[in-house]
Amino acid sequence: MRPGEVRREVVRGHHPGEQYIRIVRPFARDFRRVDRGLLVAREAVLEPKGRIGKVWRAIRRVLIGPPIPSAHEIHERLTKVKALAIFASDNISSSAYATEEIMRVLVLAGIGALALTLPITLAIIVVLAIVVTSYQQTIRAYPRGGGSYIVASDNLGPLPGLIAGAALLTDYVLTVSVSISAGVAALTSLFPALFAQRVALAVAFVVLLCLGNLRGIRESGTIFAAPTYVYLAAIFGLLGYGLLLFATGNLPSYEAPTEWREAHGVEALGLLLLLRAFASGAVALTGVEAVSDGVPAFKPPEARNAQIVLILMGTFFGAIFLGMSFLAGQLGILPDPSEQETVVSQLTRTLVGVGTPYHYLVQFSTALLLVLAANTAFADFPRLASFLARDHYLPRQFLFRGERLAFGVGIVVLAAVAATLIVSFQGSVTNLIPLYTVGVFVAFTLSQSGMVWRWWRLRHEEQSWRRRAFPNTVGAIATGIVAVVVGIAKFALGAWMVLVLIPLFVLVMLGIHRHYSTLSRELAVQPGETVLPDNLPPAVVVPLSRMDRAAVAALSFARSISSDVTAVHISDTREDAEAFRRLWEEFNLPVPLVIVDSPYRALVEPLLAYIDAVDQLDPQRPVAVVLSEFVPRHWWEYLLHNQSALRLKLKLFFRPNTIVVDVPYYLGHGFRVK
Amino acid sequence: MRPGEVRREVVRGHHPGEQYIRIVRPFARDFRRVDRGLLVAREAVLEPKGRIGKVWRAIRRVLIGPPIPSAHEIHERLTKVKALAIFASDNISSSAYATEEIMRVLVLAGIGALALTLPITLAIIVVLAIVVTSYQQTIRAYPRGGGSYIVASDNLGPLPGLIAGAALLTDYVLTVSVSISAGVAALTSLFPALFAQRVALAVAFVVLLCLGNLRGIRESGTIFAAPTYVYLAAIFGLLGYGLLLFATGNLPSYEAPTEWREAHGVEALGLLLLLRAFASGAVALTGVEAVSDGVPAFKPPEARNAQIVLILMGTFFGAIFLGMSFLAGQLGILPDPSEQETVVSQLTRTLVGVGTPYHYLVQFSTALLLVLAANTAFADFPRLASFLARDHYLPRQFLFRGERLAFGVGIVVLAAVAATLIVSFQGSVTNLIPLYTVGVFVAFTLSQSGMVWRWWRLRHEEQSWRRRAFPNTVGAIATGIVAVVVGIAKFALGAWMVLVLIPLFVLVMLGIHRHYSTLSRELAVQPGETVLPDNLPPAVVVPLSRMDRAAVAALSFARSISSDVTAVHISDTREDAEAFRRLWEEFNLPVPLVIVDSPYRALVEPLLAYIDAVDQLDPQRPVAVVLSEFVPRHWWEYLLHNQSALRLKLKLFFRPNTIVVDVPYYLGHGFRVK
Repeated sequence: MRPGEVRREVVRGHHPGEQYIRIVRPFARDFRRVDRGLLVAREAVLEPKGRIGKVWRAIRRVLIGPPIPSAHEIHERLTKVKALAIFASDNISSSAYATEEIMRVLVLAGIGALALTLPITLAIIVVLAIVVTSYQQTIRAYPRGGGSYIVASDNLGPLPGLIAGAALLTDYVLTVSVSISAGVAALTSLFPALFAQRVALAVAFVVLLCLGNLRGIRESGTIFAAPTYVYLAAIFGLLGYGLLLFATGNLPSYEAPTEWREAHGVEALGLLLLLRAFASGAVALTGVEAVSDGVPAFKPPEARNAQIVLILMGTFFGAIFLGMSFLAGQLGILPDPSEQETVVSQLTRTLVGVGTPYHYLVQFSTALLLVLAANTAFADFPRLASFLARDHYLPRQFLFRGERLAFGVGIVVLAAVAATLIVSFQGSVTNLIPLYTVGVFVAFTLSQSGMVWRWWRLRHEEQSWRRRAFPNTVGAIATGIVAVVVGIAKFALGAWMVLVLIPLFVLVMLGIHRHYSTLSRELAVQPGETVLPDNLPPAVVVPLSRMDRAAVAALSFARSISSDVTAVHISDTREDAEAFRRLWEEFNLPVPLVIVDSPYRALVEPLLAYIDAVDQLDPQRPVAVVLSEFVPRHWWEYLLHNQSALRLKLKLFFRPNTIVVDVPYYLGHGFRVK
Repeated sequence: MRPGEVRREVVRGHHPGEQYIRIVRPFARDFRRVDRGLLVAREAVLEPKGRIGKVWRAIRRVLIGPPIPSAHEIHERLTKVKALAIFASDNISSSAYATEEIMRVLVLAGIGALALTLPITLAIIVVLAIVVTSYQQTIRAYPRGGGSYIVASDNLGPLPGLIAGAALLTDYVLTVSVSISAGVAALTSLFPALFAQRVALAVAFVVLLCLGNLRGIRESGTIFAAPTYVYLAAIFGLLGYGLLLFATGNLPSYEAPTEWREAHGVEALGLLLLLRAFASGAVALTGVEAVSDGVPAFKPPEARNAQIVLILMGTFFGAIFLGMSFLAGQLGILPDPSEQETVVSQLTRTLVGVGTPYHYLVQFSTALLLVLAANTAFADFPRLASFLARDHYLPRQFLFRGERLAFGVGIVVLAAVAATLIVSFQGSVTNLIPLYTVGVFVAFTLSQSGMVWRWWRLRHEEQSWRRRAFPNTVGAIATGIVAVVVGIAKFALGAWMVLVLIPLFVLVMLGIHRHYSTLSRELAVQPGETVLPDNLPPAVVVPLSRMDRAAVAALSFARSISSDVTAVHISDTREDAEAFRRLWEEFNLPVPLVIVDSPYRALVEPLLAYIDAVDQLDPQRPVAVVLSEFVPRHWWEYLLHNQSALRLKLKLFFRPNTIVVDVPYYLGHGFRVK
């Protein structure tokens, strides 16, 4: 019975009297024996046996590839060049829509209000500078990775941590929805015919990213570094060319989208509109968190390199954002009300001509970068969810890494929610934006406040704590104000959903945590306190509806585990009771039979009452119910049988002190008794 | 451990040293002991313990009443007066729409074609007379009840029996849909405002009938006899009055429905239209079967009384049908194209005035009789389904009689299908009629052919076989012709659905029969051939993911049923394997541990492979897998746990030779070990 053991079989040879002994090693096929009591499963155990299982496995192999053993996991460190490309893609890609979203709000007050695009851009860049400076401290303090969830729970306690966590998870979902929608918009700017299919196209991208991530795309592949640099080169080239034209006074004239010409300003240019424009542009700060989250992935000196990358990121992004807003203003570009053509595309085609190779280059590299930005959320969301699951705030399933080492549950949940959002909002970036940003700034505020509190705690150990706390304080105040501004300005447009969802989400996570804590407290057992008790064999009850082979198999097994076995038959009528008694006596089995007459024709309830009574007769001993279950050849054949066994099992499962034993009987196979 | 046994408990008294012996009789509360090994469950066992169970039970009591014990079943015999009311209601109620349905077809060829209503009515009455005569023989030959299913299977073999059974089941469903829709039409004729709600109203009637029948309405109650006689009196009074007016030349003038005046004949008056009109009117023959089906319910002499009732039924119905068609023709009544007002209502209001008490009387008694007719299908369908289930052609569930002695599954299935039909056809009698009638005539033909064959078989015993076979031969030929006519005439309008459904239904029933036969053949066991083998205790495998109280409970139970117990832990990583091994050694339990390292992080598959290997090591012994299952306090807490145990159980269930043992561990309760 122990692994490594062999079974000897006597085999008769061809000649009379000839005999061989065949040695069977049942464990050899599926396991490698490493040590006494330690086997290693081979890949062969994963091979399904059934036909459906094989087909499903073949499909999975094509979609996500063959399984990867844990030992093959790669821990690659990133150079600054690669790290910038990977971590900054989310942030830098926001430049593809940040200017446009500011303009879309301002234009509501008429074309003249668009002059305010540049000042608002500058205000946002100031906030960005504050955040980047503030995060320099976070990176230094948390070289093992300092996402908002970790920093906030570490310094402010679990509740702020959970709020930050919930805000970030919401945000990662929106990163996917917004980036993919914006990527699709970059493509439909080139090919207006695709516009009608933009929702389907966006969902298809989400599914592709989901499959790619289940397959376990290596974040660090060079292939993911390329789009960022191509985009940077293309955009800086474009902006440089534009500025040159501007400096030389040769800016070409701009042709507005057709639909625009009849549109008018409909709202007054009040404070709320200004705040809304600012809130829309503040989307530019999403993705800053990524760098401080991923510090351990940098080559040493990790913190230093991460700080440099963060500054580079901020600088590049700021330059693009500023240049874009400036040139859009100078050219007098108007956002397309139908969302068919992006502002970037209008800018490009005005400067270099519609349909020119450069126009294609900018649009394609923008689309690619945006998809890449969504891809980073596919890395961030499952990782944060696994942190929360590790701390027992999310279901354990988020911790499980599938055949390809990816956090499968997190990836699928992210893809499903993001796709649902895209469909609900018809793939419109402008409609999705109000939901975005609130979460980011809530997380920023909590993270920065945590840092402030940290410096205060360490004030006796850290000499320069005042100097260090300063940028974090400024950061916390600035991001806090922006969070409030965004929340108010975008409240009615959709931010309320996020502001309702985050507390709800936090409540659910607290409930989950309480469940897991109770569980582990109640189940905990220490080595010293337990000696396995020498239990009496259980009192065994075998419910029988008929006398057939399945019944004999159940009785036979019951007798093999206990000497105290009682067969119970529930009868509808007294005639049935007498007939069953006569049949039972003919069989002459060494097991007593109790017949329970059920005048109300109920089956399950009298049986449960009987088991209750048996249990009370001797409360010290468990009761085992042995069910003879017939297993049909086809699943649909189940429908032809009374579902009583299933109902009985369900009821018994919720009855303390009762053990349920299933003895299956296979049609065409039987149960090997003796 | 045996019922009737008592447990003695020592109880300490109030004074020091004082002791009582308390005798506990656990079986006394729920069971009455009749004999050695025979208990009778009390009603108390049906009392649910949980809160949801109690609420559900209270709702059920209100809706369908308290449970009835089998012994209280009433077997009442019917007088001819009651029998006529109950069995004839289906047939006689057809007179409420038969004339109208003929007219609706004829009018397609113009108002002039309506003159053919009377000749077609006469033709149908001839068929009715043939069928009634023919069924006189059936009643004599099958005094224990001769429905088409029984007569056809008895004489022609199982396949024709099944065809008749499938045809009749289809027909009972349509009886409910058509009768209820027609009943609602009788009401909307009085209250046109209800017309918009006719579908909801009809579905509500179906639900009421379903609940009433689940409650176990006594078919024989006097309350069900009244509507038939009220209807007969009201209609005969109306027709008599109408004929009197006609004889005296005082027929009032008729005002056609408003919409009608612009309508024109659109089809040519060809043979097919005539056949369609005939087929529509042939609906009048539904319900003739009921009498011969219910012979055992009559007072003795059963057959004689049933024959008389059948003749009375035919006479009454024929008279009404004829009178109705005649007067409708004389008054020049036109069917309302919007189906808002029935022909009967138009006839009544023309003769006695709209909104007069007599108009109300006719309409209400018609509606009531039609609902009563639907109610007979609620008795017939479940009974026929239970016959088919008894012969293993339908799932066993159709045989089970619920708490109120009703065939609950049959009743609910009938109500669900009938309601679906009403909704799909928008509660329109005219749209439902083409599906009807085909089934009835197929069943008639098979039943009568069966009778012919029966006389041929008995020709040597029965002197007068030729004389007896004659009416059946005429009946078989006539109903066979009508079946073909109806099938062809109504094919495109919906009869094709029935003609496709019946063979499909027969195929399914044959499949079910084959399944049950295989099952009982393979499971059969004879008293002589079995001695319970003295099995070795099973090889027990206990999969453990953690060391907690649930694990200890499982190990403890495993040791109580076998001395051959192995604990198995599946580990993700080699570190986990080593940590678990160290912990295990600290616990120092007398059970060997095998750790299976799973490099691909799969849990279920390596465990299954391990169980396979253990099984192959000693194929003579069964393997028992003891699962420690933790039972949470709330159902939603299940979502927070890996579904691995469930997946494992499912896989094990389909693995021969493996027994699954569930050892539940209750949070807040524990598992009583020792």
